[in-house]
Amino acid sequence: MDVEDTVFLLPGPVKMHPRVLRAMGMPAINHRSAAFQEVLGEVRELTKYLFQTSGRVAVLSGSGTAGLDAAVSGLLRREDPVLCLVNGKFSERFHDLCKVYAKPTPLEFEWGQPVDPAKVAAALEKGDYKAVTVCHNETSTGLTNPVKEIAAAARKRGAMMIVDGITSVGGIDVRLEWGIDALVMGSQKCVAAPPGLSAVAVSERAYAALHESSSFYTDLKAHIDGLEEDDTPFTPAVPLFFALREALRMLKEEGLEARIKRTTRLADATRAAVDEIDLGMFPRKGFESNTVSAIRYPAGVDDKKFRTILEEEHRTVVQGGQGHLKGKIFRIGHMGIVSIADLVAGFAGIEATLAKLGHRFDRGAGVAALTSFA
Amino acid sequence: MDVEDTVFLLPGPVKMHPRVLRAMGMPAINHRSAAFQEVLGEVRELTKYLFQTSGRVAVLSGSGTAGLDAAVSGLLRREDPVLCLVNGKFSERFHDLCKVYAKPTPLEFEWGQPVDPAKVAAALEKGDYKAVTVCHNETSTGLTNPVKEIAAAARKRGAMMIVDGITSVGGIDVRLEWGIDALVMGSQKCVAAPPGLSAVAVSERAYAALHESSSFYTDLKAHIDGLEEDDTPFTPAVPLFFALREALRMLKEEGLEARIKRTTRLADATRAAVDEIDLGMFPRKGFESNTVSAIRYPAGVDDKKFRTILEEEHRTVVQGGQGHLKGKIFRIGHMGIVSIADLVAGFAGIEATLAKLGHRFDRGAGVAALTSFA
Repeated sequence: MDVEDTVFLLPGPVKMHPRVLRAMGMPAINHRSAAFQEVLGEVRELTKYLFQTSGRVAVLSGSGTAGLDAAVSGLLRREDPVLCLVNGKFSERFHDLCKVYAKPTPLEFEWGQPVDPAKVAAALEKGDYKAVTVCHNETSTGLTNPVKEIAAAARKRGAMMIVDGITSVGGIDVRLEWGIDALVMGSQKCVAAPPGLSAVAVSERAYAALHESSSFYTDLKAHIDGLEEDDTPFTPAVPLFFALREALRMLKEEGLEARIKRTTRLADATRAAVDEIDLGMFPRKGFESNTVSAIRYPAGVDDKKFRTILEEEHRTVVQGGQGHLKGKIFRIGHMGIVSIADLVAGFAGIEATLAKLGHRFDRGAGVAALTSFA
Repeated sequence: MDVEDTVFLLPGPVKMHPRVLRAMGMPAINHRSAAFQEVLGEVRELTKYLFQTSGRVAVLSGSGTAGLDAAVSGLLRREDPVLCLVNGKFSERFHDLCKVYAKPTPLEFEWGQPVDPAKVAAALEKGDYKAVTVCHNETSTGLTNPVKEIAAAARKRGAMMIVDGITSVGGIDVRLEWGIDALVMGSQKCVAAPPGLSAVAVSERAYAALHESSSFYTDLKAHIDGLEEDDTPFTPAVPLFFALREALRMLKEEGLEARIKRTTRLADATRAAVDEIDLGMFPRKGFESNTVSAIRYPAGVDDKKFRTILEEEHRTVVQGGQGHLKGKIFRIGHMGIVSIADLVAGFAGIEATLAKLGHRFDRGAGVAALTSFA
């Protein structure tokens, strides 16, 4: 198995373009030089483009969780009640994070079911919450939560809205103007850069509310203020910034709207293929994610066997389920620069593997469905 | 000016070997796969070799400050009094960091003067400190603090010793067995990997004292426990781990003792050259760092002019001073894979630039001195 040459369909990290890989291989340069200031300035402007904002943004040398850490530790204080909407592994972790920096109350929904904005509104009426957290796109269940409606409910009660957009920003439309106060992305997802960087966009009122008493390395205010001056508060992960710049340039060349449209088309194609080969999607209909498809295993197909054969015989890498979904679903990422051709290559292997493991379906129908979307 | 092709003599990041650059350019791989577990396992063992310990270590996806953040937030609580030894820019920042997670009292020494262990002992007798922080190698002043003596004083009073070894680990001998409880390194310094990772080694008693209530992304216990199982608590900066592994392999091939010896020789050579061209070292004699030389400008030589000519005409990159040392000193890094040949190339430019700016000295004497160390 050549791990460097696979059909790479994880829900992140995702396939990187050779341009991005080449950009990363730069020799060491001075991160306090005019040359690197130029890089930071361009990264800042491209990050604003990505977030569809003219407001303030930060880019942190740390993965998506570092961005969430920065948002929560910068906006909330230990005594602040926060309502954490939980319907999957990553929103669960978001809740865990809030336990460190604030006083969270979870509002749980079944995994695979969306957060219900009406229930959020009801919970906000009962408690005096300073903020609400939600995972826009639950990577663990392949589900997109109705963040616009949730943000409207939070804004109505004056609560700050902190959104994990790690697998949505750049792939699914999401805007600060919906009433979001902090929105977090991760470099290795829809932007198709390497893992290790995260970015945060904040509203005006969130920026005004930032404090610096709960965290140092992930101090959001310091990162925002630094970047405004083409600088970083601490040594940045220089090679990752070069890679992110290149990946964001590619995103801008394609256009954010076109990228989101193409991502949607990849999701539609995937769902059509899934249907054709007699599999089912995991999340409730209408809430399936456009960046990550979570697919139920048919009866009798073992997760470990499936992914091993798929990888060893068809050099195709997909992800299994997490938590109690382990063994029940597999997940495919179709964000960033993933193409229909990648999905065709992957589904050819998926079909062959399912057939080998005894699943009965119309062989070739999945690939054909995908191809019709090319 | 070609920023990718210079004589690169910063006090970090430092020159990277092509092997390290190539290792970084890997395509995306699954960070929850057996292939990456193998990488993490090797990084863990090589990191223990680097720290000369069989105890526990963590590698964080974040620069040196993330490592310090993890050590302080994991070991101390808000009400814990900590004595912060301050004699430069980085120990000042270390003190700032402690303000977020504990109750620090600074014990200050003049920049360029070492921390006096007797004064530390006296301060520890007066206050009931839970911990002491020190910057082993003050990059800002090119000075190495007597950490062994300081750690002995702390241990005598039962205080935990937290050491910033960012520009010493791998270049200057420093050992947990001296009574150090947490020791932090940065990837872009003596190890000559790219910036963006940090590592922390802890004593047994420090590991037992770790709590998880002050930080999430930099949760030291989670990082240590994860790495013991070839895992990371959050998505790791995959390309940087590949690069760090290669850089640590190179360090082990050379041997830690040989690396430290060679670094010492580079420092001796630099100091000999500095002396020959009628410049002076900044720190007190006997405490000059072996990884970073801080050199006083002679009267009449302007920092900005000097570094601009050096860079533009001799494509040599050195660092200026920080804080109140701005304009007064320049700094050269000679750690990692820097060679006498690099220093010769750099000093040829330094000599030419100084002569152009009116400094009078024996032209060629610096380069000759360096060459005699080859």
